[in-house]
Amino acid sequence: MISIAIAGLGTVGGGVVRLLKQNAALVAARAGKPIAIKAASARDKGRKSGCQMADDVVWVEEPKDLASVDGIDIVVEAMGGADGAAYDLARAALSRGKHYVTANKALLATHGAELARLAEASGARLMFEASVAGGIPVIKALREGLAGNRILEISGIINGTCNFILTRMREGKLDFAEALYEAQANGYAEADPSFDVDGFDAACKVAILSALAFGTEPDLKGVEVEGIRRISQVDLQFAEELGCRIKLLGSARRRGKNVEQRVAPVLVSTASPLSMVEGVVNAVLLRGDFVGDVVLQGRGAGAEPTASAIIADLIDLVRMPSATRGDGTLDGGLFRKTSAPDAAPFPASRESAPTESPKTRHYARFYAQDKPGAIADVTAAFRDAEISIESLLQHGKPSASGATTGGLIPVVVTTHAVAPVALRGAVEALLSRQAISEPPCVMRMEG
Amino acid sequence: MISIAIAGLGTVGGGVVRLLKQNAALVAARAGKPIAIKAASARDKGRKSGCQMADDVVWVEEPKDLASVDGIDIVVEAMGGADGAAYDLARAALSRGKHYVTANKALLATHGAELARLAEASGARLMFEASVAGGIPVIKALREGLAGNRILEISGIINGTCNFILTRMREGKLDFAEALYEAQANGYAEADPSFDVDGFDAACKVAILSALAFGTEPDLKGVEVEGIRRISQVDLQFAEELGCRIKLLGSARRRGKNVEQRVAPVLVSTASPLSMVEGVVNAVLLRGDFVGDVVLQGRGAGAEPTASAIIADLIDLVRMPSATRGDGTLDGGLFRKTSAPDAAPFPASRESAPTESPKTRHYARFYAQDKPGAIADVTAAFRDAEISIESLLQHGKPSASGATTGGLIPVVVTTHAVAPVALRGAVEALLSRQAISEPPCVMRMEG
Repeated sequence: MISIAIAGLGTVGGGVVRLLKQNAALVAARAGKPIAIKAASARDKGRKSGCQMADDVVWVEEPKDLASVDGIDIVVEAMGGADGAAYDLARAALSRGKHYVTANKALLATHGAELARLAEASGARLMFEASVAGGIPVIKALREGLAGNRILEISGIINGTCNFILTRMREGKLDFAEALYEAQANGYAEADPSFDVDGFDAACKVAILSALAFGTEPDLKGVEVEGIRRISQVDLQFAEELGCRIKLLGSARRRGKNVEQRVAPVLVSTASPLSMVEGVVNAVLLRGDFVGDVVLQGRGAGAEPTASAIIADLIDLVRMPSATRGDGTLDGGLFRKTSAPDAAPFPASRESAPTESPKTRHYARFYAQDKPGAIADVTAAFRDAEISIESLLQHGKPSASGATTGGLIPVVVTTHAVAPVALRGAVEALLSRQAISEPPCVMRMEG
Repeated sequence: MISIAIAGLGTVGGGVVRLLKQNAALVAARAGKPIAIKAASARDKGRKSGCQMADDVVWVEEPKDLASVDGIDIVVEAMGGADGAAYDLARAALSRGKHYVTANKALLATHGAELARLAEASGARLMFEASVAGGIPVIKALREGLAGNRILEISGIINGTCNFILTRMREGKLDFAEALYEAQANGYAEADPSFDVDGFDAACKVAILSALAFGTEPDLKGVEVEGIRRISQVDLQFAEELGCRIKLLGSARRRGKNVEQRVAPVLVSTASPLSMVEGVVNAVLLRGDFVGDVVLQGRGAGAEPTASAIIADLIDLVRMPSATRGDGTLDGGLFRKTSAPDAAPFPASRESAPTESPKTRHYARFYAQDKPGAIADVTAAFRDAEISIESLLQHGKPSASGATTGGLIPVVVTTHAVAPVALRGAVEALLSRQAISEPPCVMRMEG
């Protein structure tokens, strides 16, 4: 019998309780031992999520006290938050040699390196499959399934809220605010949607995936982040015309000796498998030097998929309590800067990577005056900046969504591969000449 | 240092040698120890695949002798074949307690249960990620990543040759024979393509996935198999009209107390992620009761992806040489009939499952006489069999591919959910009345 403690009995914690109950015999058969919740901490004792807890469960007020309840083998945390109670509990549990299973991406992205060191020192394991992309086993794929590969790039749709909003904007010809409202009404977005729509949630996940893929410590501050608020209906329409869909992509890739980490809306060609991922579904593409591109897709959030990931971690822990390496370090030195060859290309300092972003095709949508010469101004500015235009799209009349106002018409320029800095120069020239009315919406194009 | 023996140095074996050389330091860091090939068996000593083997490698004539070379920890088999040398080697290695890593789907599908018993008896582990879908970590996802789920269904595009042929037939408006020729010219199909195009390769993979998903022994004979030879150009066109793509799907699902295993071409709605998987790419959908649908996609064959899977197994073995369960059985009783709850719903006997297939929508393509009353004959036969027709498509004139000849026109009937047996009745009636010229092409419709 394996005794676990659980902190947090909201959506995710409630899912864990239900799974352990509903699939108890199956979990016991696969783990080799039954797994039972013996201690818990939750403000409402799980009443809101309808958790029925056994009578012999030990309740504690302070989550961090779960680490010192007698007889607990593993602590499961489903509270969230980078600091505060979750951080205190993680440190308390790992210091005492308790295995720690968490769905908390903010905690991992912020304190992952410290927690990994605590785990290594005490012989505990730190498990976090549920922290990225819900039930999709992407952490396991990176750490184990693709372990023979040098990972070249990861890229994914890892925020279901944003993908739902962008999907509804496209399908329903909605503006951002309307689609956000729908997401909130469906329970896919919080009352304060900022953590999702401004890209921070995805940034935490990028930091975790990037650290695993490239053998570094999680570096949340090194992620360039841009959300989806400035995407308007007209952009969805232009994207469709260009054979693309707009997706909020979280990505990390090698650039020489550095790793570039980024969250931003991107025009993804419909030839790419990521473009077809709609609604709240998540998908992550992993590119390895031998395996090529592997795409994993599924539900990225919600009680049941997240519980599935947490239970997979629990079963792994019960079957393999000490996955030591030959040299005695745990988990292959998780998040630990080593002299291993995969870490070697990176600078020893924690300095963030991007010096200059690589050249890619770009999309820029302006509003220009609807008068002769306006388009000529735009193309001249691109010529002066030595940027090669691939296509120019213009909707002379207001579009169905009524996106144009006051004599302004939306104009889109797509470029051949160009460095973002060059594009910024052209845009600034246009703004200073008042050829365009406001900063354009600029996105990379991929696939 | 971990010493391995390798049997077979063709495409796959050559890939393993190259990966171990190219990513040696990375593999050593992730496994915790260097992995070195110390013994090998291959007719041409790897010359054809350009393998450069170290001078101190022990060469043996008979593959099975690799199991008794001194100092070998793990045997890697990349020969193929259900019986003969591979089977002898597997038994010899596992009997002696050597871990066994194989890409051999036919061996696993045919002798998996026996080999798992040998492994369990000797304390060795049997690893076979490379046997299904190349580098995509689908075996790991089933055994570990989704371990908390009751698996309801698996379904996938698991033969790249067939998917390439069907893709080329659709894109290039080719007939089967032309597309097969292209596949052969590109190295995607063998000179004798039967193993692939008649569905046997996919059937082996279904037997392996099904055993893992449902806790049974592999039952290759229990897989209903149908290949793609009878698909003609006109079917691809009708499928497109119906908003579908034709895919050879390998699937296994629970039907009451049984598991239904099947390989057959299916009309997959373009709303399904599997419909978008084109060319030699593989994709597998796993449906769990908590995680929902997870789709894993990537290159399903070839030297590099297959080597990636084999090396992942090797790293797992080095890091976790004995993944025992609490009760001391290895690997959670791989392929072993247990009294575990997930195995309970199945009959104790090895009898194959399907009694009566479930009702699904169906597609039936006939050639009917191009004369008044022909269509009425068809619809009457369906009415008499109490089959509800969903749509009837008819191309009055010969299609671009010239599919019609001798006054015959292709007619497609799609039905609402119907049992295959009812459909067979209607078809036999039509044949006996000579209302249609030959047995129709019948496929299920999904998604």
